Amino acid sequence: MRERRFSPASYGGGPSSALPERKQTILKMTRTSTNLGVDGGRLWADIMALANITDAAAPYTRRSFSKLFLDGRQWLTHRFHEAGLATRIDTAGNLIGRIEGSDPQAGTIIIGSHSDTVPSGGRFDGIAGVAAGLEIARVLRERNIVLRHALEIIDFLAEEPSEYGVSCVGSRGMSGKLTAAQLQFSNQQGERLEQALARVGGDASRLAQARRTDIRAAFELHIEQGTVLEGGGIDVGLVTAIVGITRIEIVFEGAAGHAGATPMHRRHDALVAAARLVDRVRILAEEFAGRGKGYFVATTGVLEAKPNASNVIPGTARLVIDARSELREDLVEFRERLDKESLGVAQAASVERAAFQTLSDALPSACDEGLRHLLKAAAARLGLSFVDIASGAGHDAAFLSQIAPAAMVFIACKEGASHCPEEWSEPEEITAGTAVILETVLAFDRGGDQSFVPAAPH
Amino acid sequence: MRERRFSPASYGGGPSSALPERKQTILKMTRTSTNLGVDGGRLWADIMALANITDAAAPYTRRSFSKLFLDGRQWLTHRFHEAGLATRIDTAGNLIGRIEGSDPQAGTIIIGSHSDTVPSGGRFDGIAGVAAGLEIARVLRERNIVLRHALEIIDFLAEEPSEYGVSCVGSRGMSGKLTAAQLQFSNQQGERLEQALARVGGDASRLAQARRTDIRAAFELHIEQGTVLEGGGIDVGLVTAIVGITRIEIVFEGAAGHAGATPMHRRHDALVAAARLVDRVRILAEEFAGRGKGYFVATTGVLEAKPNASNVIPGTARLVIDARSELREDLVEFRERLDKESLGVAQAASVERAAFQTLSDALPSACDEGLRHLLKAAAARLGLSFVDIASGAGHDAAFLSQIAPAAMVFIACKEGASHCPEEWSEPEEITAGTAVILETVLAFDRGGDQSFVPAAPH
Repeated sequence: MRERRFSPASYGGGPSSALPERKQTILKMTRTSTNLGVDGGRLWADIMALANITDAAAPYTRRSFSKLFLDGRQWLTHRFHEAGLATRIDTAGNLIGRIEGSDPQAGTIIIGSHSDTVPSGGRFDGIAGVAAGLEIARVLRERNIVLRHALEIIDFLAEEPSEYGVSCVGSRGMSGKLTAAQLQFSNQQGERLEQALARVGGDASRLAQARRTDIRAAFELHIEQGTVLEGGGIDVGLVTAIVGITRIEIVFEGAAGHAGATPMHRRHDALVAAARLVDRVRILAEEFAGRGKGYFVATTGVLEAKPNASNVIPGTARLVIDARSELREDLVEFRERLDKESLGVAQAASVERAAFQTLSDALPSACDEGLRHLLKAAAARLGLSFVDIASGAGHDAAFLSQIAPAAMVFIACKEGASHCPEEWSEPEEITAGTAVILETVLAFDRGGDQSFVPAAPH
Repeated sequence: MRERRFSPASYGGGPSSALPERKQTILKMTRTSTNLGVDGGRLWADIMALANITDAAAPYTRRSFSKLFLDGRQWLTHRFHEAGLATRIDTAGNLIGRIEGSDPQAGTIIIGSHSDTVPSGGRFDGIAGVAAGLEIARVLRERNIVLRHALEIIDFLAEEPSEYGVSCVGSRGMSGKLTAAQLQFSNQQGERLEQALARVGGDASRLAQARRTDIRAAFELHIEQGTVLEGGGIDVGLVTAIVGITRIEIVFEGAAGHAGATPMHRRHDALVAAARLVDRVRILAEEFAGRGKGYFVATTGVLEAKPNASNVIPGTARLVIDARSELREDLVEFRERLDKESLGVAQAASVERAAFQTLSDALPSACDEGLRHLLKAAAARLGLSFVDIASGAGHDAAFLSQIAPAAMVFIACKEGASHCPEEWSEPEEITAGTAVILETVLAFDRGGDQSFVPAAPH
């Protein structure tokens, strides 16, 4: 059962008016991008080559910090060199390919995403954005275009949740948000993140050196991981904001007991409390999303009952609830409501709410208005259709937006599937998104710097 | 958080009137049982010796068909021989120690339980019942009492759910209820139950030979696995019936999706449906139990969400629901209600109910009225307190009751804990239950056979 239908009208922000029919759009784009020299075939080949550096038993798997991840980076480093980029690894473990600009004072434009995957993930999430940057660097070189700004193509370290319990390690490091406490997080083998960072060429003791003040624009191409673009037949999504994400772990403790020998009125069934909270989370999320103030979703993705045996009353149940919103105040209110609801269901089921813990709490990040204007103009010049869209997923750009103007370009992915082997985008879709970023980089470089004030969370 | 309180009035069938204070009761019992020659210290030593034949890494584990299980049986066989019992293994894999009676036409009295355990189980569930039988055989021999009936002490094969997905293998075999299909069930290594049976000395090709028509009375001592006896300070529970157990597996299939990128109104969240069903199961069970017609409990013990990751909407959720009742019609009605409820929650959450499967369906089994009268009289003569109690757990006696008069004696266990290392009964409690069975065996043997008509399920 997969998503197939989509009504653009039901989603905030309709597509740009008078959309051409999808096939025509792609033809137009392809012609235009050929003029720009974006080589879709070469770009596609890079994505497939990197994707195939995978755990053969669980495609597509290239977990951050693993041997395969380092193999992938070796391959990327080679391709960066071929494209004329000077490569280095910063102290936050980011792989950076750089070409200097004509004006040493102009600062840096960065284009990047990540090469790590979740276990049994896909071929595009992260990879496509790194490959797009590499292709743009090659096009500029082939066309003998020297930008005023330096250009960096970046493979950010460990964007996906890592074994060390923290995601976006590299972009956190680059924006000064990787904390000393996080560096002490351990994986199951007892290795600390700071040790893992050293293994991949970073240096936790000199982490401040990774922090950047020279970035004037940051771009990231990424698959949508939803069905808005595919459903509407839209070429690119121009991201308005990356949602804030609050993750809360709740544990109910009751009493494990024999499923036969314990009368109903003497039970302390932790799963009953947990199940009722799953229902409440859904109802609350629908209420918040229905207000129409901003994008809001909440999900109970993890529910573990113990001992999880058919003949034993569950004595413990653990949930992880993931809430996301463009609006910080919605997340704060949701957490308060969840606090009350979880106490209520615990009392009703005669169990204890043994834990209510915020696992992570990322602020919403607005994408830069100026860059979004340039992206829209570029898409229009290329004859591509576009739509404003909120990113329900977290991305490195959320951290970068705290130190620089940052913007994201989404491309369609088949049936919204992501973090799975079925993840798929068409070559033409990736080429279109890449062409929009190339066009925007050229326009931005010509137009000079904008002043940048980090957006306050809203 | 453990059960500590218990109000006898809230449970069907109060304790016998004018209960003596618990400590006095035990003292009286101990004196009486000493007169009968039940050696509580020897009985206790047997239980501890057998319990200690365990996987040292996961006490107390002695899984049926394992090397440790066979070690335990070797030890038991030796003890059976010391007690003057002739031993054999029947074609259903039951270990039987037998002493002939004075009247070859009188038939057989059996006393038994099982020596296998669940993983990380306890020292008493099953073991205590086998050891009680062994002690009774020893007492009779030491006192030179020859019964009219033959006496058999039986270690029934694989009472606990085995690796092959079936429980009560030996008592099913003895009562003609082990099916050809069940014999083909495989464990995870691909070994079929019929092969495993051969490994422990049984023979699936001659299974009919295990079926018995000569049994005139079957007794089983077992820990209660609940808190009725402990809470009421009652020496023995005389089981009225063993509940029927219906186990149903339900699977909801929705669509896994990104927890951030999928708007609330476009979700097919299988966990939301499953969680709402957990709530409905609880409410239905309370309704059925509240009718006061018979003991009823229902439990959702298993809930598995997939992929069970905080940032993915669960695409699949599987539940196993365990319902138990003294009344067959309650189980039939519960299953029908569950069918409707599960379709309802699936529709409301826009997911499919992909499976609704009865995993097992055992009929309720009444314990024999005549034997229960003898047990009550014996307990009264010994000065022990007793109470009528339904068994919420399944037992070998449920199968034996289909071929012979069968009865069970429960003894208290600490805080109702069972199937765990903390499982505990006091030596005096085990001695008391054993003395009641010995006294009843003597009375039954003197009183001659009763006619036996297998009880129709009610």
